[in-house]
Amino acid sequence: MRIGIVGAGQLGRMMALAGIPLGLEFTMYDRSADVPGAAVADVVTGRFDDLRALARFARGVDVVTFDWENVPAASVRAIARIRPVWPPPRALEAAQDRLSEKRLFTKLGIPVAPYAAVDSREGLERAIAAIGLPGILKTRRLGYDGKGQARIRRARDAGDAFELLGGQPLVYERFVDFTREVSLVAARGRDGDVACYPLAENEHAGGILSVTRAPFVDARLQRAAERNHRRLFRALGYVGVLCVEYFVERGRLVANEMAPRVHNSGHWSIEGAETSQFENHVRAVAGLPLGSTALRGHAAMVNVIGRKPGAAGLLRLPGLHWHDYGKAPRPGRKLGHVTFVTASRGRRDRVARQLRRRLKSLT
Amino acid sequence: MRIGIVGAGQLGRMMALAGIPLGLEFTMYDRSADVPGAAVADVVTGRFDDLRALARFARGVDVVTFDWENVPAASVRAIARIRPVWPPPRALEAAQDRLSEKRLFTKLGIPVAPYAAVDSREGLERAIAAIGLPGILKTRRLGYDGKGQARIRRARDAGDAFELLGGQPLVYERFVDFTREVSLVAARGRDGDVACYPLAENEHAGGILSVTRAPFVDARLQRAAERNHRRLFRALGYVGVLCVEYFVERGRLVANEMAPRVHNSGHWSIEGAETSQFENHVRAVAGLPLGSTALRGHAAMVNVIGRKPGAAGLLRLPGLHWHDYGKAPRPGRKLGHVTFVTASRGRRDRVARQLRRRLKSLT
Repeated sequence: MRIGIVGAGQLGRMMALAGIPLGLEFTMYDRSADVPGAAVADVVTGRFDDLRALARFARGVDVVTFDWENVPAASVRAIARIRPVWPPPRALEAAQDRLSEKRLFTKLGIPVAPYAAVDSREGLERAIAAIGLPGILKTRRLGYDGKGQARIRRARDAGDAFELLGGQPLVYERFVDFTREVSLVAARGRDGDVACYPLAENEHAGGILSVTRAPFVDARLQRAAERNHRRLFRALGYVGVLCVEYFVERGRLVANEMAPRVHNSGHWSIEGAETSQFENHVRAVAGLPLGSTALRGHAAMVNVIGRKPGAAGLLRLPGLHWHDYGKAPRPGRKLGHVTFVTASRGRRDRVARQLRRRLKSLT
Repeated sequence: MRIGIVGAGQLGRMMALAGIPLGLEFTMYDRSADVPGAAVADVVTGRFDDLRALARFARGVDVVTFDWENVPAASVRAIARIRPVWPPPRALEAAQDRLSEKRLFTKLGIPVAPYAAVDSREGLERAIAAIGLPGILKTRRLGYDGKGQARIRRARDAGDAFELLGGQPLVYERFVDFTREVSLVAARGRDGDVACYPLAENEHAGGILSVTRAPFVDARLQRAAERNHRRLFRALGYVGVLCVEYFVERGRLVANEMAPRVHNSGHWSIEGAETSQFENHVRAVAGLPLGSTALRGHAAMVNVIGRKPGAAGLLRLPGLHWHDYGKAPRPGRKLGHVTFVTASRGRRDRVARQLRRRLKSLT
């Protein structure tokens, strides 16, 4: 079976690395051939709105999935007329627009911060009056890694925020005074079977994920997150891996956003779980049974961003696994990640702190 | 860094799958482009004695290694004049000829069964008289998976055995009345650092490896095997993974043969160890530090030979990992392997027995 992946970044690359041992074959589609996925698959090049090129790509594969959720809806629908598309187009469409995502969460009883759509300066004033301060103004589309966001602490910040982001559909959200950020990654097979990883705790730096530690053990929050995932899976007729990011506010989960794909906060699973998120995603998309998400220990993942340390310096650290995405360095760009797994939580947390310092000195 | 692999079979494929995450790039060389490695690397095609094609291939990479040790010595030496070759040519040459291999073992104090070179019918009679019966007559070159061997139980079998194998250089060995077969896989880095896996226990069926269970725990035999490996590493100026297969006879190791490459009896390490034999081999060849060989539990590997079960049937078995080499089925051909890791030895051995039965029913 040949799986087509739209987008050939590091996520596509890691999907193929997980799927090739299962006997699966891969073709990817991206704007350029100089992409991380090119090391492990043929890459068809074209624009993401070139429906003819996408149709040719789709006819060359058996089933299509994504390494990037912001493919234009018209493109996704065009592909879906030719080949099965997993996750389903409506999941991508829901995740592409912060407003429809929040409406979906609300409809399914998944707690979110109070929010309001904003289309004008006056609309922003009304939203602030209704929801309160502090808050965050966000673009409805194409926001990632902290981009397309402006914090509004006091009433007088509103003008600057609107000036920065206005002219496109926006959403205003109440600021969540969170104690931590966690995420749940889970897969659903074509047979409806669901495999959940444990909650992972995430730390961001400058809006970009910096460290993930898994498992984050809290049986009550785990149950709540799994229940939310099952609701989303059913509502969307979902197949594949889905990630939902949460704030933990006063001991409760507040959903921030979802990603209808494998997710950076699940990379630890390559070494930390019996079956990685990448393998479970391709198993699901290929219609194969899901694999065990049993843990191998306490895992941490640290992103390598902007500058790349030498592989020798990294690999000298015992037990450390290095994942180089094969990308040219650029400020703020995710170039790779490192993972390690320990027998105890305390040791994992100590090593993670040392590793972040070490990475700074190696780059 | 780009690593060239001569031979693009399943071993090359698994080396590339392990090395790509480290940021390494791969080009392979094989007689045909329809090979397991083609899924993960560019494949240059040519005969293994085409020195010009091999030279072009070598100039396109930074360092060269092998997925197959029976490359003609002249070809290996031609490549070594252009690029560093690891393991070193003399290791390949020693392993290509059972007689030079046994002489090397003997010189280094590594116990082997009594043996004698045989070049004629009379020579075989002399060897039998000197060494005794029962014994095995083997071709000195190109024997693998039980091919090129004839058992001599009684004096009157000698004629048939010589008729089958004569006309090429042979070696006669005393039959080893072994209680089990074990192997040691270990890696040596370019810095001289050595990383040993635990002994693994192997079961063959019809001359082909069927099941490997690791670790085989015996501290005395482990020490003896590691000492032998260190002697071979030093004598050969070795870099990369080396496997030595042993018989256990009356509680002592008797070396059978060595493979100067990653080995089927080390495949369990992909899931069963912190760093797989494939990753440690490419780390060594690339001049990177070796990774930890710490165990993740009790592992077993079962080969899939001749006929291939459906992936769905295999993956439904919990905790099972499937490695499909992407080869067309053919009787006696290794098509893939399955691995699993358990917390206890007893459970591993039970599951391995069930799995062998199950594999028979799935194919």
